[in-house]
Amino acid sequence: MQDKDDDENPNDEKIEKQDDVVDPWNVTSSQQSGPDYEKLIVRFGTSKISESILKKLETLLPGGSKLHRFLRRGIFFSHRDLECVIGKIERGEKFYLYTGRGPSSSSLHVGHLVPFIFTKWLQETFDVPLVIQLTDDEKFLWRGISIADVQKHALENIKDIIAVGLDPAKTFIFTDLKYISQSSAFYENILKIQRLVTFNQVKGIFGFNDSDSIGKISFPAIQAAPAFSSSFPQMFGTDKNRLCFIPCAIDQDPYFRMTRDVAPKLKYSKPSLIYSTFLPALGGAKSKMSASDPNNSIFLTDSPNQIKNKINRYAFSGGKDTVEEHRIHGGDCEVDVSFTYLKYFLEDDDKLDRIRLQYSTGQMLTGELKKEAIAVVQELVQDHQNRRNSITESILEQFFTPKSFMKE
Amino acid sequence: MQDKDDDENPNDEKIEKQDDVVDPWNVTSSQQSGPDYEKLIVRFGTSKISESILKKLETLLPGGSKLHRFLRRGIFFSHRDLECVIGKIERGEKFYLYTGRGPSSSSLHVGHLVPFIFTKWLQETFDVPLVIQLTDDEKFLWRGISIADVQKHALENIKDIIAVGLDPAKTFIFTDLKYISQSSAFYENILKIQRLVTFNQVKGIFGFNDSDSIGKISFPAIQAAPAFSSSFPQMFGTDKNRLCFIPCAIDQDPYFRMTRDVAPKLKYSKPSLIYSTFLPALGGAKSKMSASDPNNSIFLTDSPNQIKNKINRYAFSGGKDTVEEHRIHGGDCEVDVSFTYLKYFLEDDDKLDRIRLQYSTGQMLTGELKKEAIAVVQELVQDHQNRRNSITESILEQFFTPKSFMKE
Repeated sequence: MQDKDDDENPNDEKIEKQDDVVDPWNVTSSQQSGPDYEKLIVRFGTSKISESILKKLETLLPGGSKLHRFLRRGIFFSHRDLECVIGKIERGEKFYLYTGRGPSSSSLHVGHLVPFIFTKWLQETFDVPLVIQLTDDEKFLWRGISIADVQKHALENIKDIIAVGLDPAKTFIFTDLKYISQSSAFYENILKIQRLVTFNQVKGIFGFNDSDSIGKISFPAIQAAPAFSSSFPQMFGTDKNRLCFIPCAIDQDPYFRMTRDVAPKLKYSKPSLIYSTFLPALGGAKSKMSASDPNNSIFLTDSPNQIKNKINRYAFSGGKDTVEEHRIHGGDCEVDVSFTYLKYFLEDDDKLDRIRLQYSTGQMLTGELKKEAIAVVQELVQDHQNRRNSITESILEQFFTPKSFMKE
Repeated sequence: MQDKDDDENPNDEKIEKQDDVVDPWNVTSSQQSGPDYEKLIVRFGTSKISESILKKLETLLPGGSKLHRFLRRGIFFSHRDLECVIGKIERGEKFYLYTGRGPSSSSLHVGHLVPFIFTKWLQETFDVPLVIQLTDDEKFLWRGISIADVQKHALENIKDIIAVGLDPAKTFIFTDLKYISQSSAFYENILKIQRLVTFNQVKGIFGFNDSDSIGKISFPAIQAAPAFSSSFPQMFGTDKNRLCFIPCAIDQDPYFRMTRDVAPKLKYSKPSLIYSTFLPALGGAKSKMSASDPNNSIFLTDSPNQIKNKINRYAFSGGKDTVEEHRIHGGDCEVDVSFTYLKYFLEDDDKLDRIRLQYSTGQMLTGELKKEAIAVVQELVQDHQNRRNSITESILEQFFTPKSFMKE
């Protein structure tokens, strides 16, 4: 053991730790392959999704269907208490899903779809109610956007979220600003959480300091509250302690670490969580896709041509500098952004394996790989746009209405 | 000047500063005559209510009526920007009143009536709308009382507040927990304030520290928000910047100092304030009357007999130890609690002057003074109880309904 430690450059870990910044407001990595997710698991104290958990979960799928590709390919890679959810499914007991979005802008990119695509699959597969929070208040507090503007962004974002294909009969979508002034139960839970969490704790968890606004300092309770079913009395009635299962990207873990800390003090169950990696920006996995950088992102409003041009021009390539070298050494799928997009969005496992083999052995050139990625992303976005265009006011209203799941 | 300073014990001020504790959660003094209000004015940076302001205000009273005894007798003694309110009255312009109560218990004592008696006079005299906030959330956060209990306390307190004689057509009474989940405008103002105030600031103003809950830390914004008319759109409509005038005890100044700091950043007018002294506990002015100490307080539910016994047994006396001494040297009205109650609640100026003269010259004995105080307090409480008993559900509803004052 001693020898092994000596082999490592003792600074390596330090540098990586410093350079992988993953918190709710920043995600960057010093490595071309992106954040070191194994190290994140250790740093955050979450668990890796093991093969045995995946196998177990697969046995519970209806009609012998396959696990979602995000699970098959380790895109959802980490969890907290996923066993509790599996137990509920096994015993046919109730739980509900909760995820969300901070409406910092009106334009979503394909990276934003990841948690919602997966949530839709969970909802469909296990037939569970879902609540979706839009933290317009958070973006008002952090970004200096006006209340009117965060509300506009939220509405546009909601249409994109709905377009993923969620079930209006089983989904309640709300914005904080509106739901707080609609539901005393929600605000009561916020207050109960705020009473139990000290400034010291949020300083440790979120890195707040004395110059931060009291709005930021108290906000985490607002993201925590929907993890308790008592925040939705119209939906869950007297079932005030229904298990909550939260699919999201791993940068949200600080919020739910805090939520899980307070849960027992409120005599509520700790929520279970399942965490995804980040979809890389076009420029490579050192940063996640971000709405603020148009040439680094593929927006849900991009035309097929824009998608083609963006991927051709900007998608970081794992290919070699010359065709000759590439034919000899092959490309590096680990850092190749086009390949990564295929890994996220191409459903066909065999085809993905074939592409991986061909590209990494040099049989497939970067241009050919990009063509595959372009086709898949174009179809994803086109289908999305079609579904979004068919959203009517009355469909929106359905999603904004809490429905009763007292018996479900 | 040098000489004068030398004459003083250099420690005096220090001791008094240390021992006069006046903040929203504690009021105690080391002096038998109570807090040094002149020094409080300097420490808080408020203004003294001058003779010339009082004269000016008197000229504006309808039908040549007198100033309220609380003004004639310096019980409301300090202010911030009272001139702005006087200017509004002079020019016949609109403003509104805002005061409140923290419902820490169901039982109010006579000291609690002071701001409401004065507010009623302001409402009546100047015919202005009034909003009254019950900070049930505050008492939940600070006192560890359950939400159900603070809500119960709030309802009982509201009945006592109404019994003071407020005009249901011009008064809106709300509890935070209810109004936040009714009015998005209120919550939006809370958020806007929370965005502008840092932990450093509330640390300086309220003495919070890192071990305080994030609920406490962010609460001051909730007490600040009603000072902006835009928190009440149903009442003030597009008049989002109507001047707010706040009568309260001086311990609330930290909240409104903060409120006045943020107002210009939100393009709102700073509220004007008028501050009262504290009604002494039966045991003397070293502490204010407090609901947690039954033998030190006269409750609004006390019977005439209880009032008589409490004042006779516990009211701190400024009289001398023996009748002989008292006849020679007279009593000290400054520290005498029975006399102070008369100063607060006996309307007749001539009679009060007569009692002051007779008591301080030894013509009146402590027992006789107490008898006068007992009669006045018994009448105050009896009248209050009669009015409280006649409050019906429908009267409560009237007070809970925001009414439109857009044209008033």
